Amino acid sequence: MKSAKRAVVLLSGGLDSATVLAMAKAEGYDCFVLSFDYGQRSLTELNAAKAIASSIGVIEHRVLRLNLEDFGGSALTDHSLHMPDAETESIPESGIPLTYVPARNTVFLSLALGWAEVLDADAIFIGVNAVDYSGYPDCRPEFIKAFEQMAALATRQGVEGAPIRIKTPLIDLTKAEIIQAGVSLGLDYAQTVSCYQADEAGRACGRCDSCRLRSIGFKDAGIDDPTRYQD
Amino acid sequence: MKSAKRAVVLLSGGLDSATVLAMAKAEGYDCFVLSFDYGQRSLTELNAAKAIASSIGVIEHRVLRLNLEDFGGSALTDHSLHMPDAETESIPESGIPLTYVPARNTVFLSLALGWAEVLDADAIFIGVNAVDYSGYPDCRPEFIKAFEQMAALATRQGVEGAPIRIKTPLIDLTKAEIIQAGVSLGLDYAQTVSCYQADEAGRACGRCDSCRLRSIGFKDAGIDDPTRYQD
Repeated sequence: MKSAKRAVVLLSGGLDSATVLAMAKAEGYDCFVLSFDYGQRSLTELNAAKAIASSIGVIEHRVLRLNLEDFGGSALTDHSLHMPDAETESIPESGIPLTYVPARNTVFLSLALGWAEVLDADAIFIGVNAVDYSGYPDCRPEFIKAFEQMAALATRQGVEGAPIRIKTPLIDLTKAEIIQAGVSLGLDYAQTVSCYQADEAGRACGRCDSCRLRSIGFKDAGIDDPTRYQD
Repeated sequence: MKSAKRAVVLLSGGLDSATVLAMAKAEGYDCFVLSFDYGQRSLTELNAAKAIASSIGVIEHRVLRLNLEDFGGSALTDHSLHMPDAETESIPESGIPLTYVPARNTVFLSLALGWAEVLDADAIFIGVNAVDYSGYPDCRPEFIKAFEQMAALATRQGVEGAPIRIKTPLIDLTKAEIIQAGVSLGLDYAQTVSCYQADEAGRACGRCDSCRLRSIGFKDAGIDDPTRYQD
């Protein structure tokens, strides 16, 4: 017998997913946190995820090893591609950035769905965002809706008439609004790592796309940037 | 530049998926085969998959390790549950069998989708079947259709107007029809392993649900059963 509503929360260790975890917790969910070690360059993100999950207080935190780098195709996981700096570089035909990991959110949500089914969870939380739109097809609201419909057909909960919901509390928020929401919930953003090339201590480069968007977010929010930079 | 149409084919090493691979090959696809080592009891299935892929002739065969057993919830991966014999035992509320692995087809198709996106593949082949319906929600045609719609929104190919198709050539076939199709394509079913508790040499128990369905299939097809049994 479940005593409280349950959520599986996807946590990368970055700013967005940490905010989502704080939100799920504030909504009264018992949180089961899932992170992935998928061969990304920045393992410091995973250390950040562990610290965040521990600070916020979760029922369980699992890290799944997943060799997405076997598939190649992204500057985040393919070490032979260079890391885009400052300006967003894209695959010309589609406008999709080089940092796109093929089907990443589909894979992450599917694995979260497997765990959610076993836990008999009510929801899966994911920090996708359509405002500071990054050009990733799997960050669009229509993708999330389609995934939710598929999940309702894929699982026992759906068959029994109580499908698992996919919750995206950041979908309509600007980066500044996300930061304001997190700060109001007491989240310590110094624990989060957004940088594509953070050093082993979790300090950010200050130059990559992700650092740039994050820094602008703090400025727009009127909040001092607590990010630890390399210089 | 692609010279031929490409498919990612999910191959477990069982009868159904081996037939699907033979069908994809016969349709002229360059086949990229994906198998999973997901902590199931029967690793002999993976050895069978390797032998089958090699016999049929594929461009590449990848095996991804995936700790679905971390999630528990199925007699196929949870060693504390007993293995159902002869009669199908079910979770009472939903009629879903104990051997159901949570969200398995969703997870497998999602990972296939990631590889298909990188390969710029035209299709993913999966051996789901709705006739000898096993009670798994993720074997239903409506699930496959929903996955395909989600995949079209998730990937570069979908954004560019040429979505990756999910092909299920077995969906309307009886086990006997599947076997007849495979035999007509020259498939050697002695290489395939269906048994939930095959021994290390790949010999079947002859008693579990999967053995029972397979044996009836050969009888109904009027084809001598080439399965290697333990006694």
